[in-house]
Amino acid sequence: MIKNITGSVDFIEYLRGKSATYLLSMSNTKTAQIEGITQAGIPGLIHLTPTLDAEFLCSGEVRSLENIAETPKGVPTPALITRAVHLLKPFKNIELLDLGIEVKPKLNYFKTHSFDISPSESITKGADIDAFELFQKGVEFGQNYEPTSDYVIVGESVPSGTTTALATALALGYDVKDKFSSSFKNIPTDIKKDVVNKALKNIENKVELFDKLAMVADNMLIFNAGFILGANSKDLKIVLAGGTQMACVLLIVDSILKQMDGIIDSSKFALCTTKWVYKDDSSDIKALLEMIDFKVDSYFSEFDFSLSNHPALKLYDEGEAKEGVGAGGALVYGIINGLDKKSITNKIETFLG
Amino acid sequence: MIKNITGSVDFIEYLRGKSATYLLSMSNTKTAQIEGITQAGIPGLIHLTPTLDAEFLCSGEVRSLENIAETPKGVPTPALITRAVHLLKPFKNIELLDLGIEVKPKLNYFKTHSFDISPSESITKGADIDAFELFQKGVEFGQNYEPTSDYVIVGESVPSGTTTALATALALGYDVKDKFSSSFKNIPTDIKKDVVNKALKNIENKVELFDKLAMVADNMLIFNAGFILGANSKDLKIVLAGGTQMACVLLIVDSILKQMDGIIDSSKFALCTTKWVYKDDSSDIKALLEMIDFKVDSYFSEFDFSLSNHPALKLYDEGEAKEGVGAGGALVYGIINGLDKKSITNKIETFLG
Repeated sequence: MIKNITGSVDFIEYLRGKSATYLLSMSNTKTAQIEGITQAGIPGLIHLTPTLDAEFLCSGEVRSLENIAETPKGVPTPALITRAVHLLKPFKNIELLDLGIEVKPKLNYFKTHSFDISPSESITKGADIDAFELFQKGVEFGQNYEPTSDYVIVGESVPSGTTTALATALALGYDVKDKFSSSFKNIPTDIKKDVVNKALKNIENKVELFDKLAMVADNMLIFNAGFILGANSKDLKIVLAGGTQMACVLLIVDSILKQMDGIIDSSKFALCTTKWVYKDDSSDIKALLEMIDFKVDSYFSEFDFSLSNHPALKLYDEGEAKEGVGAGGALVYGIINGLDKKSITNKIETFLG
Repeated sequence: MIKNITGSVDFIEYLRGKSATYLLSMSNTKTAQIEGITQAGIPGLIHLTPTLDAEFLCSGEVRSLENIAETPKGVPTPALITRAVHLLKPFKNIELLDLGIEVKPKLNYFKTHSFDISPSESITKGADIDAFELFQKGVEFGQNYEPTSDYVIVGESVPSGTTTALATALALGYDVKDKFSSSFKNIPTDIKKDVVNKALKNIENKVELFDKLAMVADNMLIFNAGFILGANSKDLKIVLAGGTQMACVLLIVDSILKQMDGIIDSSKFALCTTKWVYKDDSSDIKALLEMIDFKVDSYFSEFDFSLSNHPALKLYDEGEAKEGVGAGGALVYGIINGLDKKSITNKIETFLG
């Protein structure tokens, strides 16, 4: 049920039966307002997606809008998958990382870590991120964060995040064309390419790593690169729950280490994603992870919707949505804690009526 | 599977996946010796019910009597429900609060908190409770208690406790006639009314809150009102697991706050009960909770015995027993930790053969 993308099974086997805190990294980039760039939400209200994902994940309710976010094609948010796992085998905690969102989730009790971060600009306009300060906030959080659980799972909700991740990886000099995923099945290559090219044009004269990140990345990518590095001196295991965006977090870590001549103990973290990302013909997460100088353990869950007849869920199997809100990491967490495909499928179906 | 009676879902959603200590508050009032007043136990041996409930909940065995307590109509104690949940998804600890019981449970290892409290007299005879001292013992326990779990669930086993709760709420001036539950389906209204009227007659000349409580309440009600207030300054979440009796605990808290011009942070506790209490035609827990000045989050579990064919369990669905030994809170705890109706039903059936 869980397969390696890279590395060995030991990391994930070690986590069996241990308790997890789920951290949802939420951020907005105005890149998502570009028409046709993302499928992750409701047109005109794309910026609400992280807010709604957080509300649904924590409470089972969508509070900042009438209905749960789904794409124009009717693909329901992968938050349904993460929520289903949480109902069947609860995370010990869910906490939120506000990495610059427009609308705060309406939730009580659930801890939100705030860092005074604003949503970033569109990467076509230079993003306008104070990248080094943001990175340092991530490092500091990693150094100081003490979960009450055995490990943490870090998911994300960042509309148009695969576009900013692609631009970031290219800006850092990785040869990653055609290796990044998308929320679409038929990826709007022209729009995406155009946006990424514009972004890269903005940094033609930049040489410093953080100067580049400031203009082409998004808040989630930069913060979590800092988080991984900051937490690395501690005895804390981290699952990066996501696809090519989380791979890009690791490419940023890799770039920073190279620049600083630094080293990292990469036995303390791993990446977990979905089968839909792993099998995706238009991206290549394995190739991305293999570009990294340090060794990375990475996994995908074999879960798919073959046991469901629900047309909205079948869209996942057809490639219309692949990952998000830590769905892959949640599935892996569920499976190493005894859940099976049938029970997860049934629980997800209860959300759709 | 879990529905709000009052308030919002956030409190209970926040507790998903967190560990719980189950505290069983046990007390005897001689009110229970009045013939026909309660169905919660064996005629002539009603006082043994909390003792037997504690033994069965903790050990799966009934030690102070040959058989498990059941009513003359054959309704098994709700301790079966709480025990079933504990077997499927164990509480981290079960601890006992001896709030004045005639016979100590025969148990090793399980911690019993003792406070040198005697069983109370019948409320027809003025109950004879040192109410302020008892309240202070509750406050002190709340201030000092440090569970090793993330939160606590407080259940109760107090035969004739709905009668003393009704008398207490009326004595405190709440308009609660016909709003209190009973262990019976066809409530012995005349007997109960008669007992309550006698009790209220005893306090006709009393004006002080604690003077009234001393004569019409029971130990569990007064102690737990103190516990809620004492724990309120700490970061401890408390689930009051019970129906109208636990609502009465909150009415006492409300009365004390009004008298002292005090305030409480009611985000630290909630009430959880069963569907049988919520749907009960002869009581109204929602109305009781809405009489309270502070905001109360309250929930019921949708669990019933529709998946069972066992005649003794069917009596619950017919209204012959509704709550007790924290059954509703245990069901909510089970459900937020991934248990389903079928597995809980099956486990309860194993106790009945």
